[in-house]
Amino acid sequence: MQQKTALVVSAHAADFVWRAGGAIALYASRGWNVHILCLSFGERGESAKIWKTPGVTLDEVKQVRRKEAEKAATILGASVEFLDCGDYPLRVGDDILFGIADRYRSLRPEFVLTHSFRDPYNFDHPFANHLALEARVIAQAHGHNPDTPVIGAPPVFLFEPHQPEQCEWKPELFLDISSVWDKKYEAFQTMDAQEHLWEYYTRVGLQRGAQASRNSGQKIKYAEGYQCVYPRVTDAF
Amino acid sequence: MQQKTALVVSAHAADFVWRAGGAIALYASRGWNVHILCLSFGERGESAKIWKTPGVTLDEVKQVRRKEAEKAATILGASVEFLDCGDYPLRVGDDILFGIADRYRSLRPEFVLTHSFRDPYNFDHPFANHLALEARVIAQAHGHNPDTPVIGAPPVFLFEPHQPEQCEWKPELFLDISSVWDKKYEAFQTMDAQEHLWEYYTRVGLQRGAQASRNSGQKIKYAEGYQCVYPRVTDAF
Amino acid sequence: MQQKTALVVSAHAADFVWRAGGAIALYASRGWNVHILCLSFGERGESAKIWKTPGVTLDEVKQVRRKEAEKAATILGASVEFLDCGDYPLRVGDDILFGIADRYRSLRPEFVLTHSFRDPYNFDHPFANHLALEARVIAQAHGHNPDTPVIGAPPVFLFEPHQPEQCEWKPELFLDISSVWDKKYEAFQTMDAQEHLWEYYTRVGLQRGAQASRNSGQKIKYAEGYQCVYPRVTDAF
Amino acid sequence: MQQKTALVVSAHAADFVWRAGGAIALYASRGWNVHILCLSFGERGESAKIWKTPGVTLDEVKQVRRKEAEKAATILGASVEFLDCGDYPLRVGDDILFGIADRYRSLRPEFVLTHSFRDPYNFDHPFANHLALEARVIAQAHGHNPDTPVIGAPPVFLFEPHQPEQCEWKPELFLDISSVWDKKYEAFQTMDAQEHLWEYYTRVGLQRGAQASRNSGQKIKYAEGYQCVYPRVTDAF
Amino acid sequence: MQQKTALVVSAHAADFVWRAGGAIALYASRGWNVHILCLSFGERGESAKIWKTPGVTLDEVKQVRRKEAEKAATILGASVEFLDCGDYPLRVGDDILFGIADRYRSLRPEFVLTHSFRDPYNFDHPFANHLALEARVIAQAHGHNPDTPVIGAPPVFLFEPHQPEQCEWKPELFLDISSVWDKKYEAFQTMDAQEHLWEYYTRVGLQRGAQASRNSGQKIKYAEGYQCVYPRVTDAF
Amino acid sequence: MQQKTALVVSAHAADFVWRAGGAIALYASRGWNVHILCLSFGERGESAKIWKTPGVTLDEVKQVRRKEAEKAATILGASVEFLDCGDYPLRVGDDILFGIADRYRSLRPEFVLTHSFRDPYNFDHPFANHLALEARVIAQAHGHNPDTPVIGAPPVFLFEPHQPEQCEWKPELFLDISSVWDKKYEAFQTMDAQEHLWEYYTRVGLQRGAQASRNSGQKIKYAEGYQCVYPRVTDAF
Repeated sequence: MQQKTALVVSAHAADFVWRAGGAIALYASRGWNVHILCLSFGERGESAKIWKTPGVTLDEVKQVRRKEAEKAATILGASVEFLDCGDYPLRVGDDILFGIADRYRSLRPEFVLTHSFRDPYNFDHPFANHLALEARVIAQAHGHNPDTPVIGAPPVFLFEPHQPEQCEWKPELFLDISSVWDKKYEAFQTMDAQEHLWEYYTRVGLQRGAQASRNSGQKIKYAEGYQCVYPRVTDAF
Repeated sequence: MQQKTALVVSAHAADFVWRAGGAIALYASRGWNVHILCLSFGERGESAKIWKTPGVTLDEVKQVRRKEAEKAATILGASVEFLDCGDYPLRVGDDILFGIADRYRSLRPEFVLTHSFRDPYNFDHPFANHLALEARVIAQAHGHNPDTPVIGAPPVFLFEPHQPEQCEWKPELFLDISSVWDKKYEAFQTMDAQEHLWEYYTRVGLQRGAQASRNSGQKIKYAEGYQCVYPRVTDAF
Repeated sequence: MQQKTALVVSAHAADFVWRAGGAIALYASRGWNVHILCLSFGERGESAKIWKTPGVTLDEVKQVRRKEAEKAATILGASVEFLDCGDYPLRVGDDILFGIADRYRSLRPEFVLTHSFRDPYNFDHPFANHLALEARVIAQAHGHNPDTPVIGAPPVFLFEPHQPEQCEWKPELFLDISSVWDKKYEAFQTMDAQEHLWEYYTRVGLQRGAQASRNSGQKIKYAEGYQCVYPRVTDAF
Repeated sequence: MQQKTALVVSAHAADFVWRAGGAIALYASRGWNVHILCLSFGERGESAKIWKTPGVTLDEVKQVRRKEAEKAATILGASVEFLDCGDYPLRVGDDILFGIADRYRSLRPEFVLTHSFRDPYNFDHPFANHLALEARVIAQAHGHNPDTPVIGAPPVFLFEPHQPEQCEWKPELFLDISSVWDKKYEAFQTMDAQEHLWEYYTRVGLQRGAQASRNSGQKIKYAEGYQCVYPRVTDAF
Repeated sequence: MQQKTALVVSAHAADFVWRAGGAIALYASRGWNVHILCLSFGERGESAKIWKTPGVTLDEVKQVRRKEAEKAATILGASVEFLDCGDYPLRVGDDILFGIADRYRSLRPEFVLTHSFRDPYNFDHPFANHLALEARVIAQAHGHNPDTPVIGAPPVFLFEPHQPEQCEWKPELFLDISSVWDKKYEAFQTMDAQEHLWEYYTRVGLQRGAQASRNSGQKIKYAEGYQCVYPRVTDAF
Repeated sequence: MQQKTALVVSAHAADFVWRAGGAIALYASRGWNVHILCLSFGERGESAKIWKTPGVTLDEVKQVRRKEAEKAATILGASVEFLDCGDYPLRVGDDILFGIADRYRSLRPEFVLTHSFRDPYNFDHPFANHLALEARVIAQAHGHNPDTPVIGAPPVFLFEPHQPEQCEWKPELFLDISSVWDKKYEAFQTMDAQEHLWEYYTRVGLQRGAQASRNSGQKIKYAEGYQCVYPRVTDAF
């Protein structure tokens, strides 16, 4: 039987850990190939602590972030790929867009995770969202690389931004990640440069867990929230 | 094993047919007890054709609508109950609200279907929505009839209004009803007084089916659209 | 030929002057019967100056406001009717609602003007909006007073609230009222108790006029803005 | 010098503690009279644990909640008043509304705190919001109790609901409550019946603190978020 | 007398047929010059069937789509022009933008039709919207090609996207196209590559017709829905 | 003591005058360094009257607008800098973006004023908004020019667009500018090319003043309205 795949499009090296680490670990634990595309290392905008090292260079910062992210991906059980497009601002040409479309074609993901539509604190995030969605549409086009088969219509879920209400992001789905929380927290710990976020995102996990419990009548300790881009198609509510 | 139940709160006698007939038939076909609460018969506002009968009385109109609705419910495989609260305008006291809360307690539905939050063409519809949601909250309160056990947190789905964009209603879930379309259409045909709607809602079923296909890559002929009131809690996307 | 009619539903005695005086005068000048329903006199909440008279009674305040409003209506060329439901808060039973529905039936208006959907400064305004819309729906119901013919679907336009952006009100239509501005301003002057509003609403007229010019390329000096409740049906853009 | 006052309108006995306890303690610590109106005790809907006591009566539940709330208010340094309107559903007549308006008149608050506009989990909350806002407008009306002076325009701030994104609530203001956090947490501990919320709302305080830091560049440990109903008027940004 | 003109900005070769074919045929039948700008042929993303031909090239696909679109335009009575900017993704430089601005200047359209503001299924559509609106603003600028006269303020109407609720598109105007439906359907039939859409858009026409009837009290069989970008300026409601 | 600074990002040469002239004059009168970045001169799109001069060149138009804007800035007490990026359309490369980021770094403004998020009449305005916000984020990034210190989190306020409701702009803050109104009006008068706007924006000032009075209970003659991008952080409501 073919291994199922999921695709994660992450603007910076650590976004996938804080925002979707539970989903990644959960599906990896089920034997899926979860593949993470990091558009940048977050080298300029999300590496404050590393920049405190005297004389550190941009390349060195990138290397540190790359290693952390690789380690985190390994802990979560996922593969990771770095497109090195730069951050603050993230900028890509259509070659990168087509490259992402080709990843859709080669991976044929069952679902896709990416950033919110808006974020007034971080314009790389909505841009990553746009890339992930536009590449998906291109991968559906019969005239794009007509020799490889088009993809279907994988659903896209938007993970939680840092300040959800300011980003017009609303959780429409709570994913119970209690069973893999340990892995998510272990992945946090690879992020030396952002230690202050470990506890922040632990509390996010607990709050979303409490809310998931409220919305289901089940006991759920840790959850991740996701917004849905497209309607769900189903034969059962 | 206990039979599972679902609850449908319908403002007028025919709403459940046009808007949720597929979901009702689908779950009935799976052995569920689907119970429909009709808050009114739609006797004043949705029985234009019957009122053309010279000398017809309000009670007679109600009787016609009741019979049609009972017949439709039977075709769909559901039970139906009429609260006779009046329509155009629908008005209820807290006794009715508590009655609906008690239905939640006695039925313990797995899910609930009702009207949209807004409808500038029909104020009975958002009022039915409010009743269905407020009764659900009361049924969760430990101090309401403390001798019967409180309910959990059944999800609520809002079925499609007549002019969806004008009602700020958005389909977030497409339910494939192809397998029970025949039953839904048969139920349409009990509604002698609203024959013009048979084809209208057949086209709705086909459009939502086409959209469900687009959003899933599957072939789906007929679908119903639903908006979700609460976040979904899940361990799989 | 039958005289055409329009209906204005005004929460307080003066609302119709500030907010819709131009539309009223314009259609009156074209020979229409424009009928104004004042749900209250604004006796408690919009008569600050009159209340400064030592010993003045509620009835006396009502009489002053009634006379002003009658005089304003006469200047604008409209008929006016007072339902005396009280203000701050406006409260009505279903008898009043049915009374308004019956006005729809007897007047058969070509269009209806009323308040915005929201107003956090004045809850009588959205309530008047709700009454005007719900009465319209009841007047369309064949089972309501089955002996009088139902109405069609007159469009409803929402006039400008005092602080438009705070009321989620947006002008979707600018009505050129330059030709009747003098009458509107003359009607302002009957409102002794609200002199501070004369200049405020003159400026509103000029700003909306300037905006109407921008949106049409025509020279328009005075305009009133309206939001549309229902889609326009037309055979020409 | 006259003592300044603030008014808190709380649907249930404990809402003011979880949602506004920091603001209350902060202003009390500055010598203000902070007055809390509890519309109900939350006796039916927010006292699950107490209802587990065999044979407990509604009145006994109310007494427990009253005592807890009085104790919490004392810890926070505020006065509290119970209107005993019932909960799940909260229902009030215009006498209560006028009573709240009279509190506005007698207290003349500098600002008002209350619930969010919407809450699909709890319809008492938006109803309390509506009461607080409508009473404010009535208290501004010269014709309401013309013998007592009208109030000005105190700003109204909406405290945080339990599931903010589901309630269309957005924090527009972060109040630094670090200096009074101990009091807030002490007040939590009076709420024996809702122990599961102590940690939940501690995490809320920490998350809002972290966000307040992000939005200001200051170090803030604990904060409360508020949405603003009316525009701020100022001579400095 | 000068012939009046209208401008249609269509992202792909067939959009103008499904979405605005009725409006085009209606105005053409009244003697207007309706000019269609096709930004692309939809060669990559909307020609699935043609790509099934073994060995077909991009240029051949374009030729097929061009012929179909020319034939459809002829049936509708309009002129058509292809800018060949590419699709999936549509990308244009400012030269194209200025070219569209110049079309505004030379055509001086009475109104403009184009795509919705958003479409998560197709990013070429909102981009075409943006181009149409930005070019209009440039054509209004006195400093752009100062030797040709600036345009006024032609209204812009947004035609219906494929899944309206997902695109935040709302019909604010229903255009009765019953008299030209035959031409619209004939134009559908030129689109061999998209046969599955003939019936889909026939049902759209019927649904919008039924809704137009509801909103007007007239019998209207087929309609097209449009959203309005700018307020309407009028001297009659 | 260090002089405090504020930054204004204005798309065209005159925007800062009409929209923020009061705020600029107010803070300048308090001894602040208010620095205005004009991204363009508005030479193509907002200089209609100048273009009527026969044979006038683009450079000459720019010079006229530059002089007017410099004179206006001087009257208001601010410094002004022209980036000459062109208008209708405004287009900038990342060099300009980084230049603005560097201004943030060198000025270290206490607050920032710029355009609204949307404006369907003028796409340069939302683009200026985006630049101002994205540059702010870059200036916060430790990896951007690591040798100069990052900035904190200055709040950003959006000044009033020409047609506020069409731009989804809402005043959340009213700044009392009565004390500096004379300077603002004097600055208006430098704008010979846009004389029709003097009275328009005088009325805006009066309307916002009246609304500021309503929202505060104070007498305020002239005000400017601002929307807030980020939550306010405070220790007092």
